[in-house]
Amino acid sequence: MTKVADGRIRFLITGGTIDKEYDAQSGNLVFSRTRLGDILTLARCRAEFVVEVVMLKDSLDMTMEDRLLIRERCLAAPESRIVITHGTDTMADTARVLGPAVTGKAVALVGAMIPYSFVHSDAGFNLGCAVTAVQCLPPGVYVTMNGRIFTWDNVRKNREIGEFGKLKE
Amino acid sequence: MTKVADGRIRFLITGGTIDKEYDAQSGNLVFSRTRLGDILTLARCRAEFVVEVVMLKDSLDMTMEDRLLIRERCLAAPESRIVITHGTDTMADTARVLGPAVTGKAVALVGAMIPYSFVHSDAGFNLGCAVTAVQCLPPGVYVTMNGRIFTWDNVRKNREIGEFGKLKE
Amino acid sequence: MTKVADGRIRFLITGGTIDKEYDAQSGNLVFSRTRLGDILTLARCRAEFVVEVVMLKDSLDMTMEDRLLIRERCLAAPESRIVITHGTDTMADTARVLGPAVTGKAVALVGAMIPYSFVHSDAGFNLGCAVTAVQCLPPGVYVTMNGRIFTWDNVRKNREIGEFGKLKE
Amino acid sequence: MTKVADGRIRFLITGGTIDKEYDAQSGNLVFSRTRLGDILTLARCRAEFVVEVVMLKDSLDMTMEDRLLIRERCLAAPESRIVITHGTDTMADTARVLGPAVTGKAVALVGAMIPYSFVHSDAGFNLGCAVTAVQCLPPGVYVTMNGRIFTWDNVRKNREIGEFGKLKE
Repeated sequence: MTKVADGRIRFLITGGTIDKEYDAQSGNLVFSRTRLGDILTLARCRAEFVVEVVMLKDSLDMTMEDRLLIRERCLAAPESRIVITHGTDTMADTARVLGPAVTGKAVALVGAMIPYSFVHSDAGFNLGCAVTAVQCLPPGVYVTMNGRIFTWDNVRKNREIGEFGKLKE
Repeated sequence: MTKVADGRIRFLITGGTIDKEYDAQSGNLVFSRTRLGDILTLARCRAEFVVEVVMLKDSLDMTMEDRLLIRERCLAAPESRIVITHGTDTMADTARVLGPAVTGKAVALVGAMIPYSFVHSDAGFNLGCAVTAVQCLPPGVYVTMNGRIFTWDNVRKNREIGEFGKLKE
Repeated sequence: MTKVADGRIRFLITGGTIDKEYDAQSGNLVFSRTRLGDILTLARCRAEFVVEVVMLKDSLDMTMEDRLLIRERCLAAPESRIVITHGTDTMADTARVLGPAVTGKAVALVGAMIPYSFVHSDAGFNLGCAVTAVQCLPPGVYVTMNGRIFTWDNVRKNREIGEFGKLKE
Repeated sequence: MTKVADGRIRFLITGGTIDKEYDAQSGNLVFSRTRLGDILTLARCRAEFVVEVVMLKDSLDMTMEDRLLIRERCLAAPESRIVITHGTDTMADTARVLGPAVTGKAVALVGAMIPYSFVHSDAGFNLGCAVTAVQCLPPGVYVTMNGRIFTWDNVRKNREIGEFGKLKE
């Protein structure tokens, strides 16, 4: 009756704040490797999943070529449930590239405002949202941030307050 | 088109591991108050919510009277989306009390295997799952644990491995 | 001129809150193994040290036999700097057993009010105190808790407030 | 007999990694305010202390004027025990400015390789070292990093490995 699906979830890793770590030598936040597998293990996630690293980029540095690559990986995935970890700054832009093209799959873009390596990160909560959204929602491209679910054609990041909202709330 | 709802979410707090804190004087894990509001604020949750403390109990100590009180609070809630924080040991039992009676509302029971006050708690991830489930799923009573979504009539905690699964996987 | 010593530090592990971990199956705090090596590595401690597990006990369960064993391990240690991790409840009692017997060595007893596995543990700070005390102080038996240094013959735990102080402050 | 002192400790805050926090809006590590009081409270430090914010600077941006100001604050302090929180990159330089001038007081410079706001920070451990050093050591200017204690005239940061050592180990 209810539409809860059991199929495997594919995580496409693209970088973003969620995966930034502190480099003690330089004092900067850098990408070394994705922590996604670790986070999901600590969270005791038993939904079946596979992790694919597409890139590790700050989303402000992403080009249209990058977004097309992400789209290509969505289309190529054998799974019908996909979570894309992504920097928040251009997450809505990538959603708009994926939205019209990726059909028949539930895709959730998600990230974090605070890296997972910080005590008070929002990463775990946000990943819970994304993992659940792709299991519960009909095919479509979504953004799951701030405990809310947005469709790809009605979402923006309000940079002044650091929150996601609809184009017109 | 898609069924993402915007309505306010009511959190019914009943206790459980998620809200246990270390009492340095006694060396025991105890309930003092719920941390739910704090957790959701740190997680930058902007879904509208209200928190109602029904009880703060270890779920092994819950009686049928307690479960009926939780059911009563579900029925009395003006919201159609309810998240119930609950100890994991008898979460499935409470779900079975709520399932046949609570109609027209999406209800998710959720808890944690590790208290929120620990470094490696699953609380944040699990809450993200529950918050999303009640916004995405049709009316019904669900358990959201281990990154999976279970219906009230097909869920059990496997205590040997400390994980939730279907009655027959 | 100053008395900063470079010699290797021996850690004698006896248990106590510092090493308690949450057992998700039982919901209890238990001992599985010492985390001392991990804590010191994360803390980037480069003072040379060796870890010896003597026992893993709640200090309320310690017997005089246990304390005599700890004393024996202090006397047998080739190092002249020893840090003993110990439950706080009877730390002062063990100090009084060691004090008159262990000469020619700087020994610091230390523990934690909150286990290391909690977000807001005092374990790291306290270990920093102990590691420094045994490098800076003349031979003797000390308790390093609450950012203070006590001599073995003038220390008690005030259980009502959960703090260490002198016998007469 | 032993030289453990009870007098109040003055914390001179100058910035450095220890006090850097993540700014979710910009994605950068920034100074907003010192966390020292919070850290010491969570660590259950009951050594009497007072906190004075001298500046909040990355130590690479410190000028000789800054170091002379720190020296001036050391000389002006009524306390004979002083802990200076400081960025690690030029901590040894400041120590060399203070060393010949500050007499009759035990001064420890300390910092962190990982900000306190990260899960795996060395801040708590390092502060424990500094707080203990100024209570145990004779007057002088010291650097307490990596669980070791260095005198001002024989310390350097090895930037390649991110550790402090003697000029000639």
